Amino acid sequence: MLETIEWTPQGVVMIDQTLLPSKTVFVTCADYLEVANAIKTMIIRGAPAIGVAAAMGVAIGVQKSPDPDADFDNICATLAATRPTAVNLFWGIERMKDLYHSLNGKTPDEKREALIAEAIRVKDEDVAICREIGRHGAGLVPDNKTVLTHCNAGALATAGYGTALGVIRAAWESGKKIDVFADETRPFLQGARLTAWELMQDGIPTTLITDNMAGHFLKSGRIGCVVVGADRIAANGDVANKIGTYSVAVLAKENNVPFYVAAPISTLDLTLTDGSQIPIEERASGEVTSVFGVPVAPDGVNVCNPAFDVTPNRYVTGIITERGVATAPYTESLKALSYSAAHPAKA
Amino acid sequence: MLETIEWTPQGVVMIDQTLLPSKTVFVTCADYLEVANAIKTMIIRGAPAIGVAAAMGVAIGVQKSPDPDADFDNICATLAATRPTAVNLFWGIERMKDLYHSLNGKTPDEKREALIAEAIRVKDEDVAICREIGRHGAGLVPDNKTVLTHCNAGALATAGYGTALGVIRAAWESGKKIDVFADETRPFLQGARLTAWELMQDGIPTTLITDNMAGHFLKSGRIGCVVVGADRIAANGDVANKIGTYSVAVLAKENNVPFYVAAPISTLDLTLTDGSQIPIEERASGEVTSVFGVPVAPDGVNVCNPAFDVTPNRYVTGIITERGVATAPYTESLKALSYSAAHPAKA
Repeated sequence: MLETIEWTPQGVVMIDQTLLPSKTVFVTCADYLEVANAIKTMIIRGAPAIGVAAAMGVAIGVQKSPDPDADFDNICATLAATRPTAVNLFWGIERMKDLYHSLNGKTPDEKREALIAEAIRVKDEDVAICREIGRHGAGLVPDNKTVLTHCNAGALATAGYGTALGVIRAAWESGKKIDVFADETRPFLQGARLTAWELMQDGIPTTLITDNMAGHFLKSGRIGCVVVGADRIAANGDVANKIGTYSVAVLAKENNVPFYVAAPISTLDLTLTDGSQIPIEERASGEVTSVFGVPVAPDGVNVCNPAFDVTPNRYVTGIITERGVATAPYTESLKALSYSAAHPAKA
Repeated sequence: MLETIEWTPQGVVMIDQTLLPSKTVFVTCADYLEVANAIKTMIIRGAPAIGVAAAMGVAIGVQKSPDPDADFDNICATLAATRPTAVNLFWGIERMKDLYHSLNGKTPDEKREALIAEAIRVKDEDVAICREIGRHGAGLVPDNKTVLTHCNAGALATAGYGTALGVIRAAWESGKKIDVFADETRPFLQGARLTAWELMQDGIPTTLITDNMAGHFLKSGRIGCVVVGADRIAANGDVANKIGTYSVAVLAKENNVPFYVAAPISTLDLTLTDGSQIPIEERASGEVTSVFGVPVAPDGVNVCNPAFDVTPNRYVTGIITERGVATAPYTESLKALSYSAAHPAKA
């Protein structure tokens, strides 16, 4: 598997996720503005990967700044203004802020070195977290059935291995005979372009469907469970994730299919009592009216393009984190996980 | 509005619905094989329009045949083998068969003339039927709200005016302040390419969304009702329609939004006790893996492409026909409408 994001001497290197799978192009962001732009234009996407990119963006901003103390707030604010929904962005920035402020009195070079090390640590931890999510989730995946997933919560949405796809990978690696149905996930086609591509590379049997087919197959009985990622989870367990997740969750519940959300603890936003407070990004209409530059709708048509929706907690069977699986009532279970040991001993 | 399908001295002329809205191309089918191919490749689509095309296909087959009696069964069988789900195809052919067999003893030219007149009558009746569907349905559309529709059940899916869009047009013409949300309807994009285009031409405010956004907006409270067409309706009111309809119906019910199906009586198939007996067409994978020839998925990915799904009757608030609105229990109400006067007096 190719690296989603890497710290290199030349800058922050990312695989360009807008061009996959037909073109494998790596982008080198030489300063924090280029990192901010890469997040905004979805060269890198996926909540945990955005968290890593934000941390690396802060690090490269400080690295390249002649006067970090003067520039720090602006670097952080610029990165924070890229995308509103995934809380991991703000989590990554906050983590770097906390470290930076703890370095008061150090030289600029000491600060630069510490921030770069921290950004690399954020990335390395993310891979380990995904492995733990997989370990906790694998047992929930029914054997000899199909797993349905929406969007891409895979290696490309994280620093590696994936959250939802981490659960699928761990179930597959444990020997379960599963296959995957991947919603194509219009308008950005993360399912068609990224999830199908990732899983094919791993040799996990994968079938691509359009988003509006998910209900039909959930009704058919072949889907054993749904596993998706998350961009922000409120204190009560309401889940913001890629547009269409809410529909899949309702259709899963209607057909008695378990619906799991796989996400790191950094996706929790316990400052929000429920999902209605999560800001939903509205993206450009061109994502809907054209596909790879080819128009698919009449000129001048009015478009709505909310990039996320909110799934109320009553549709969520469980939230799989690196610290264990939360179930209803979520206000209690998520709080307990949030305050539990950050790095529990492996079972 | 352009004509969907027309009988001309040169043959059966259809607007090529695979190229709309970027190109307006008319195709002339000079024999029944070309009509069959146009149905199969979706140059013409939409259950009522397919019924008209089938009738015209039989007529042109007989017109061009040197020995209609020898060729008739083959003409009908070829047209019947084009698409399995929309029952209007078989209805159109049966209607022509019944007429043909009643012409025993007539000369070939008399038969040709009668079949052509009948095919034109099928078309003219279809427009009148759509107007009646609109008349019966307009009152059901809540004022000052948004109507959600899926796929294209418009003028292009019929001989004119439309079924679901007929209801919307009639509500609009009656002065209701409504607007429309159109699901783009992957993979064939009938919503983006055809519904949005039709409604924009009529000046009815229309917003295009991807299929996976429908749930989000149904939850939002702005959708007053859903209106869709149908490809086949079983005796118990189970409805086969474009893939994704089932999902919309479940999401409508979950959010207490009325879900209406608008279809002519010719869409009823009272020989089937329920929807599980309706054959569902599986179409080519290329419709999913590429958009207008542009690949959107990895080479060689496995694909499912069911073109239709079945919505169980419990999700259907009402079935709007040219003879009135059927409600549950459908086995009784549909049977009653089916045996009621074919051309009721106008109110």
